[in-house]
Order: sequence, then C-alpha cells, then structure tokens
Amino acid sequence: MIRIAVLGAGRIGRIHGRNAANHPDARLVAVADPHAPSAQELAAATGAEVASLETIVERSDVDAILICTPTTTHADLIERGARAGKAVFCEKPVDLSSPRIETCLGVVEKAGTPLMIGFNRRFDPNFASLRKRLADGEVGEVELVTILSRDPNPPPVSYVLTSGGLFRDMMIHDLDMARFLLLGDEPVEVHAVGSSLVDPAIGQAGDVDTAAVLLKTAKGRIVQISNSRRATYGYDQRIEVHGSKGMIRAGNVHRTTVEVANGSGVTADPVQDFFLQRYADAYKAEFDAFIEGIKTTRKFEPTGQDGLKAQRLADAATESAQTGKPVKL
Amino acid sequence: MIRIAVLGAGRIGRIHGRNAANHPDARLVAVADPHAPSAQELAAATGAEVASLETIVERSDVDAILICTPTTTHADLIERGARAGKAVFCEKPVDLSSPRIETCLGVVEKAGTPLMIGFNRRFDPNFASLRKRLADGEVGEVELVTILSRDPNPPPVSYVLTSGGLFRDMMIHDLDMARFLLLGDEPVEVHAVGSSLVDPAIGQAGDVDTAAVLLKTAKGRIVQISNSRRATYGYDQRIEVHGSKGMIRAGNVHRTTVEVANGSGVTADPVQDFFLQRYADAYKAEFDAFIEGIKTTRKFEPTGQDGLKAQRLADAATESAQTGKPVKL
Amino acid sequence: MIRIAVLGAGRIGRIHGRNAANHPDARLVAVADPHAPSAQELAAATGAEVASLETIVERSDVDAILICTPTTTHADLIERGARAGKAVFCEKPVDLSSPRIETCLGVVEKAGTPLMIGFNRRFDPNFASLRKRLADGEVGEVELVTILSRDPNPPPVSYVLTSGGLFRDMMIHDLDMARFLLLGDEPVEVHAVGSSLVDPAIGQAGDVDTAAVLLKTAKGRIVQISNSRRATYGYDQRIEVHGSKGMIRAGNVHRTTVEVANGSGVTADPVQDFFLQRYADAYKAEFDAFIEGIKTTRKFEPTGQDGLKAQRLADAATESAQTGKPVKL
Amino acid sequence: MIRIAVLGAGRIGRIHGRNAANHPDARLVAVADPHAPSAQELAAATGAEVASLETIVERSDVDAILICTPTTTHADLIERGARAGKAVFCEKPVDLSSPRIETCLGVVEKAGTPLMIGFNRRFDPNFASLRKRLADGEVGEVELVTILSRDPNPPPVSYVLTSGGLFRDMMIHDLDMARFLLLGDEPVEVHAVGSSLVDPAIGQAGDVDTAAVLLKTAKGRIVQISNSRRATYGYDQRIEVHGSKGMIRAGNVHRTTVEVANGSGVTADPVQDFFLQRYADAYKAEFDAFIEGIKTTRKFEPTGQDGLKAQRLADAATESAQTGKPVKL
Repeated sequence: MIRIAVLGAGRIGRIHGRNAANHPDARLVAVADPHAPSAQELAAATGAEVASLETIVERSDVDAILICTPTTTHADLIERGARAGKAVFCEKPVDLSSPRIETCLGVVEKAGTPLMIGFNRRFDPNFASLRKRLADGEVGEVELVTILSRDPNPPPVSYVLTSGGLFRDMMIHDLDMARFLLLGDEPVEVHAVGSSLVDPAIGQAGDVDTAAVLLKTAKGRIVQISNSRRATYGYDQRIEVHGSKGMIRAGNVHRTTVEVANGSGVTADPVQDFFLQRYADAYKAEFDAFIEGIKTTRKFEPTGQDGLKAQRLADAATESAQTGKPVKL
Repeated sequence: MIRIAVLGAGRIGRIHGRNAANHPDARLVAVADPHAPSAQELAAATGAEVASLETIVERSDVDAILICTPTTTHADLIERGARAGKAVFCEKPVDLSSPRIETCLGVVEKAGTPLMIGFNRRFDPNFASLRKRLADGEVGEVELVTILSRDPNPPPVSYVLTSGGLFRDMMIHDLDMARFLLLGDEPVEVHAVGSSLVDPAIGQAGDVDTAAVLLKTAKGRIVQISNSRRATYGYDQRIEVHGSKGMIRAGNVHRTTVEVANGSGVTADPVQDFFLQRYADAYKAEFDAFIEGIKTTRKFEPTGQDGLKAQRLADAATESAQTGKPVKL
Repeated sequence: MIRIAVLGAGRIGRIHGRNAANHPDARLVAVADPHAPSAQELAAATGAEVASLETIVERSDVDAILICTPTTTHADLIERGARAGKAVFCEKPVDLSSPRIETCLGVVEKAGTPLMIGFNRRFDPNFASLRKRLADGEVGEVELVTILSRDPNPPPVSYVLTSGGLFRDMMIHDLDMARFLLLGDEPVEVHAVGSSLVDPAIGQAGDVDTAAVLLKTAKGRIVQISNSRRATYGYDQRIEVHGSKGMIRAGNVHRTTVEVANGSGVTADPVQDFFLQRYADAYKAEFDAFIEGIKTTRKFEPTGQDGLKAQRLADAATESAQTGKPVKL
Repeated sequence: MIRIAVLGAGRIGRIHGRNAANHPDARLVAVADPHAPSAQELAAATGAEVASLETIVERSDVDAILICTPTTTHADLIERGARAGKAVFCEKPVDLSSPRIETCLGVVEKAGTPLMIGFNRRFDPNFASLRKRLADGEVGEVELVTILSRDPNPPPVSYVLTSGGLFRDMMIHDLDMARFLLLGDEPVEVHAVGSSLVDPAIGQAGDVDTAAVLLKTAKGRIVQISNSRRATYGYDQRIEVHGSKGMIRAGNVHRTTVEVANGSGVTADPVQDFFLQRYADAYKAEFDAFIEGIKTTRKFEPTGQDGLKAQRLADAATESAQTGKPVKL
C-alpha cells in the first residue's frame, strides 16, 4: 500500500484524493488545506486524517504527496517533498516562472526522487489512444498537428490577473499535448497572436481570451493550436494529426448518444461541458500511472522537464503575441 | 442514337425526358401528354415533337418508349409498345392487379421485346454501392435486412383512393429493395401491420399511413420494413443489412455538410426532402442502364418479373394487414 | 445506511455488490454463493461477510437483498425475501414460466414489500434520456419504434438449452424497452419469426439465433425489434422512435472518439463489445434507483408487473415464431 | 441569350464550356485552344465553333469570355476582353505578380466592363450555406476561422516550378475563403511557415508542400489555414468558424453514405478525391452567378479586387515563410 497525502482539497484535490482512496494499491492517509472545512470534508469522505500544510509533507507515514494547492506554492512544495524523499505528483504548472521551475527541478534531480506533472489530457482515453496509434505508425510520419481547445465560459478577471495569462494558464495544456504528439521532435519556432474578443474586461486586465499559435519543429513539422475562453456549445477539446499515411483525430464527448431529427435538422447532444466530467477517466488513469510508476516502472511522465518545456513554449507564445514577432527556441 | 418517346410529361416524365435529351447515345423524339401545355413545355425544353398518345407508341422513328403516365394505363401501353417492337421502360407499378401484370408480361414475352421497370432506388449510388458490396461478400451472408422509408408529407386523400393502398403504392419500393438485397433468396412469409396515425382521413379512406412488414425468406433470412407517410425531418430513406461478417448501411443525404454547435447541441442539416432531388442521380443512372441494355447488354433489370414479384409481396402485405394473419408465398 | 445482501457472486453479482459497497447510503453486509471462492473474493473486495444462501435472506441485519443467482432460483428467493420483509432487487427474469411469476408476485403483493426487476437498459443514460424526451413530448406522439439488439458472440449450446430460448432470454430486454418507450400503450398483437443462421448447433438445440418481432399496440402504434446472437462489430444496442413531430434515436457507444482516415475511408472505433462495460453506468443508476426507492420514493420500477408483462410478450413471441401465426394479447 | 467564348479547352475550360452550353440563358459560340484537338473536342461536344486565340476575344458575336488558359496569359486576355467591351470571367489567379494585377485591374476599371474571378469554392453549396449563415449572424461575431485544405496528391515538380509556389497556387483559395468568411474585416498580419515533408523534390525546387498561416485581422479576429499537397484519404476541404454564439463547420463530401461495421470499426466511405467532382456543383453555381451578373445584377463577385487582395495575402505568406517573420498589410 502506497500511503498518500493530498495537499489542497479544492475541486482538483478532491478528485485526486478520491482516486487515491479508491485505488487498490494506495491509501489516502492525510489531507491538508488552509480552508479547514474543505480538508475535513475530503478527509471524512475518504477516511483520511486532516493535517496541516506545515507538517504533512514530511510525515513518515506518507510515501507520496499530491500537490493540488495554488500555483504559487507548487515549486516550494515540490522541493520540500523531494527533500523529504517523497514521490511527488504536482498539478500543472510547476511555476509561472521558467527560471523558478529550473531551480526546482534541480532540487528534485539532486534528491533523486520521483516527480510527475499533472498534464491530465495525456491520460484521456481518446487522446491516449490517438497518441498510441501515432507512435505505432498508423498514420505514418506526423506532418501537421491541429489542436482546438475552448472553455465553456471565461474565468473571472480576478482569476485572469494571477493566472499568468492565457498562454501559460490555458494553452499550456495544448502545448504539452503538441509535444506529446510530436514524439520527440521539439518545436523551435513559435508564432502567436491573441485578442480579447470574448470579454473586454479580460483585455483591460492585460490578457487575451482568444488566441492561436503556429509552431514549427526542428524537423519542419507544423502545429496549429487555437484557444477560446468561451464556447456556447460546451468544453471543446479536439485533436487532429495529418500524417504521411493518413489522418487521425479525436473528437468531443457528447452528453449522450441521443439524436433528434426534425425540420431544424438532426441534432446531437451538446458536448460535455465541465472539465471534471470530461476528464474524469483521464484523472483516474493519471493517478494509476503515478502509482504504477512508484510500484514498478520508475517511469514518471509527464516529467518535470515536460513541465519546464511546456512552460517555455507558453513563455514564447506570450512574448510572440505581445511583440508581434516569432520567438525561436 | 436511340430514339426515345416519352409518354406522360408530368414531373416524372420531365425527369426521364430530360435525361433522354441529355444522354449522348439517345435523342428525345416525341412527347405525349393529354395535358397539352405539359407536353409542349417538355418538348420545347428538349427539342422534341409533341405527339398524341394514340400514335406515339407505334411511330417508326421511335426505338424506345418511356411510360410515365398514370398507373391504370401502364399495362396497356406496355403491351402496345411490345407489339410495336419497342424497348419499353415503365414506371412502377406495371398495374395494381397482379393477374393483369401476368397477362401483360405474357404479351411482352411473346413479343420478345425489352422491358424494364422503374424501381429507381436500385440505381441510387448509395444503395447501389451497398448492394454491390453485399454481392461481393463484404459482410458475409445476409441475415437481417432493415429498411426504413418515410415520406415528408402524406398525400391527399384523392390520391390515396386510387393508389392501391400504402403497401402497393409506397412500400412496393422497399419490397423491391428487399428482394434486390436478398440476392435471389425470395421472401416466403409476410406479416404486416398498418395503422392510420398520421391523418385520420387516410384511415377513413380505408388505407393506412404507418405500416411495417416482417418477411422471412426461403433460407430463413429476415427482413423488416417500416413506412410512414410523414416525417417532419425530410425524406427518410435508409437501409441496413446485418451479415455474418459485419453490418453495412446507407444513410440519408443531407442538404449540405454544414453543422452548427451551440447550447442546443450539434445540428446537422435536415435531410433532402424531395424525392426528385434525393434520387436525381438514381434517375440518371436508371436511364443510363436502360440505354446500355438496348445498346449492348440486352439485360434489363429490374425486369417485368421483378415488377410482378414486388406486386405480389405488396398484395400479401395488404392482405396480412387486413386479416391480421401472415400470408405464405 | 441501508444494509444489503447480495445473492450470487458471479459477474452480475459482483457488479451489484460493488455498486452497493460504493454507495454512500448503502453498506454491503453479506454475500452468498454456492461457489465459495466467488463469495469470498467479492466479500474480501467489499468488506462484507460470506454467508450461506440458506440463511442470508432472513438475516436481521439485512434490509434489502439483491438476487443475482441462476434464473431457476429467482422466484423462490423473491418469495423468501418478501416473507422476511426485505426489499428485493431481482435480476431479470423472475422466472421462465409466466404462471410461476404470477404466483410469486402474489406473495410479494401480500407481503407488501418492495420488489424491483433488473431491466438494466432502462437506466442506460442514453436510453433514459431518450425516454425522458419522449415523455416530454419532444417528438410528439410515438408512432413507430425500432429496436436493434445484437450480441457480440453466441452463447454456448449448454446455456441455450436452459435459457428459455432467445425470446425469453435475450429479446425480453427489448420487449421491456418497447413497453418502456410506449408510455403505457400496451402491445396487443405479436408477430415473430426466428431462424438459426449463426450457429447450426443452436438450431439443433431447438432455439433460434436470429429473430425479429412486429408488435402492434392497442392504439395502433407499431414496434419492430430484431436480434442477432452475433455481431462482428461489437455489442449493438440501438433505439429509434418515429413520432408525429420528429424522430429520436440513441446509438452505440464507441470505445473512443478516435477516427482514422486513409484510402479505405474514415474509420471510427468499434463499438464497446462487452455488456458490463456498455452498461456500467446503467447498473450504477439502477442500484441508485433501488436505494432511492427504499429511502424516499417507495416507487420501484421496473416492477414485478413489468417483469410479468415482458415475460408474456416473450412467451407470445416464442409461440408466434413456432406456429407461424400472430398471438393476440 | 448571352454568347460565350471559352479560351482554353483543358479540364477547367471543358467544365466551364459545358456549363455554358447547358445554361438556359447562355450559348457557347466559340472555343479556342492552341492544342487543336482539345478545342475541336469541346466544340464538337457543345456545338460551338473552333476559333483562334488571336481573334476570339474581339468577335462581335461574343458577349462574354471565359479565360481558362495558363496563368501567364490571364492578365493580357483580361485586358483584351475589357478593351473589346466583353464581360470577362477569369480563372484564378489574375497573375502571379501583384503589380501586374494592379495594372490589369486599372485597364478593366477604365473600360468599365465586368470582371469576375474564379474562386470556385465560394460557390460550393456547403461553404456558401455556411457563409450565408455567418452573414445572417447564426453564430454571432466571427472570432476564430479554421480552414483545412489538402490535395490528394502532390503535383509534378515541373508544375511546381511555374506555379508561383504553394501559397500563390494552392493556399490562395483558402486565403480568399478566409476573406469571404471574415465579412469585410481584412487580415493585417500574416505569419506563415512551410516545409517540404511530402516530396523532397518539391523542396529542392524551392517550394514547400506542407504549410500553415496564422492571420490576424484589423478587429483582432484570428484565422488559421493549413495545407498539404498530399492526403491519402482524398481531397480534404473543411472550414470551421468559431463565433460568439456558436460554432459552424462544413465538412467533406463522402463518395456515398455507405458505412460498414466490423471488428475494425465503423468505416465511412472515403471523401471525394477529385476537385472537379468535389466542386462540380460549385462550378455550375459560379457560372450561374456570372450569367446572372450580366443579365441583371451587374454584381460580379469575386471581383478583381478580391483577386488582388488574395494575391497580396499569398505574397505576404510566401515572404513570411521565407524570412521567418510576420508580414504586416
């Protein structure tokens, strides 16, 4: 039994905490959150203890920690976990500053402890299947990658102000996905454009709500990503890869398979519109992979380096959108 | 150049007349219709002459006739055409009475002239492709055939009264399609039920507007057909065949490929709702097959026997729906 | 906490047992199975006790029993449960004999205890949504119901011999679904045909492996159901309802949303092919409804009467297929 | 009757020539092509005369000319047509040089004669319907436009060498489509990347075969276009527009509606793979619009200015891909 502590009992902490509690090879030992009722509720639901953030990382009865706290605390907690010899799972991003990520990864490397970063979409059964088939060569060499990602609703401006901006907060998932699908061929050139078309307040806060990037890799492969902070039709998450032998894509998940036909046309159900529902299976598979890594494989992907590289791409995109010039990596 | 005369310049006569006029190996020579303006209009549009129904069949400058007149005249015209040595294409049905069809086919057989019956759906590119793949064994042995057919709107009661009833007027197309898909294994048992759910006036006129049949073939294969005289979403024409190695189906044709996603779901365009549009390509391919038969193959399908067998199935279905008992063939 | 005992620890017993163990308002107390290792395994996984079938029903620490044993034992166990004052959930069918079901339901009625029958498909999110929209009038009056159901692989002949035949064993689900979708308008006329096309051994055992029924209701509505014991493409479960205002359908669930395009066409993933996977959510929702019934609503659907009526339709279909004549109800 | 002359009897000239010959308000008078057999074949098939390129434009019995000759001759022929007072339809592009286009448009403007440029995709029924719905506000304000376009097979290097490069030869269609969908909001910033991934010989010839552009408009809207010279699955032509009220897209046209399900999945037919088939209806509608312009509306779209603006975008994309820097317009 791998003994788990979860740091942060917000909505993502609750997901990971419950997955830990239900896992046959894991046991949720402790939960910490500055907001006591949240910690208590999750502890009660899972049979774990409530602990303080000050002491939970270093507990001797804990093998692994799940960092689900606000972004600003991630790097410090990762370093504490590594120094305490714990296996660490940390929600993305490691930090909004790439140099800070580098320092943090240095500490982890020195400690020689496991670190896995929570790019959950890699574990979505649809995207994971697509990626496996790419790796198996089903569509030949990857040539063009198209990733579309739209949120159902824009976040409040208060969130936007501390988010690091759309590229670091939202598109970082797609940038990681692009790297995941490129099978090792890294982007070397980043063109980005962004606009505030959805909510003028987001623009006034200095961020964009609609954006796209164009990436070119070392081998000349091309990636297009587009994001919007608002989609009236749900949480839109799609991937398409054009290869030398064919095209492969993974589409949205609809609420049901029901379709209605009448004079207006043939209407399929809206797509699932909440990320916790859309990616419920992904979160389970992600936690499974973390446990599997601890138990047997000692392979932890996405790695800290994956976190750093995605962050650097997000930095580059942010700079490109601001300067109007491409950024080379 | 095969010289063609078209009998009947209503909407189906116009279709065939224009296909004849545009065919590289055919020439539309003459058009007849008791309604003079209709004949004149089609003649003007195609460069053909207007002729009378009394004399058009026997003209020496005509090689083949297309019978697009009302059903009650079909058998007589076929016989006239056969006796005059013409190749005859006749819209379905040969007649509403199976015995009358038998007599008519006897005349044709004696004359040794070509006869082709207008079951246009066999020539629809989608259904024809499906049938070809069935014949090629792509899904193995046929086991279950499902045919759905719904008209956009019910006909007027005046039409219903002379139509021969839904099974002979509408379902006969599906019964022919079933035979087409069964590749020679004939239905031997017919169960039918019918109701008047769409328009009470149709029920009062002694007919049904919603119906289904269940057929069993000599080899135990099973066919299900359902019809409705009204579909709010267009002209619904679908086929599905379950075989020992897989399932094959042909769906509806939508007006465009456009889809719109919003909070109500993802809506594809309505299906095409007019049979002349839906089957425009089928009518062309049907005429091509008739000309090809005359020119080279001497093979004319659907044959007069196909017309007769579909009619017998429609008779059986009518009887079964009226008596509540299956009919053996 | 509602205290649950599960009778039968085979694959369906394990599903219900685990759902009970995971339910926030239920506790799995005891498990019984003549095959001791099965009972022990499920008990170990859920923290329940192993008990004997002889004593488990009458235990005072049990509020509700889940009957997941072989069909021949269902009616007796339901009666024991009712007499002991327990809420009873029983897998379909109550019994293969309709008279036996009637006797059993009499005992339950006298006891005044809850009974719910496990027609799991009513709880499938897709079908449940379709049914809700029907009930809400989204497509107007129901006119034609089409239900297709195919198993991935035929059962062994040993199973066929004690199954009661395809209509009672397999199609009973579709017959219940038809009743569910007809919103109270009961079938009064049953036409059935069946063949052995999949496995000759099934025919030699006196059963069919390919079958279809045609039902007519009191109000003239029409239902078509077709079954096959083998589908190369997975577990095929589809419903389509044609109504006065439109058409509604619920399709299959594919393994993923991935599609691959190449010279062969555009290929979607196969449909899910194992009923426990396809209906995992349905089983959960079904158990939720049972618990909700006990806790608050005192409404238990599908009822014992639903079980009886589906059985009578299956009996009628069996008779019709054997005699070649329709059966009136 | 509008009297038409067609210049160039290659495959696109034959399309337009036949559409002219079949149009109720037009008559094909003359055909010219340096390759005499091509001119003779088209003339024979349509009842037109063969004429010489030297004299065909200025004939007094010609009202309108269709320029379907090689690109290098377009601007001269347009000018001759304008000076002779003819209505001119010219295949894209007007010229590979934007300054030459400007001069040519000056001549046309001075002559005051009609000019229409052959961006056929605007007339595709699917794309035209999508655009109409955009203009009707069905998805609100346009925010993100995604255009995917892939050819089935790369052209020979000999063609590539004189084509002006992928951006001017192939992507110009998509650049015009982008402008068409942006409803007047012009792109002002062009980022392009290109690679030779399909055929190394194309790269050696100084061109790319895989490319993408990222456009930003004056109002901050974003457009993504991607092209490949090779798609194993057919001629891929798709558009998707994300708007403030929803998303609208137009997909590919498949050869038939047939789908086959088996253990490999559910396979739809390949998409149509020849542009003359895919856009047959578009070419008809395009010619109809030209004739309608002459007859009544005096509105000719796409205009010469549309041709020029698309060319400038293609120039900008070419420059951006070569320099690695965005180009402002």
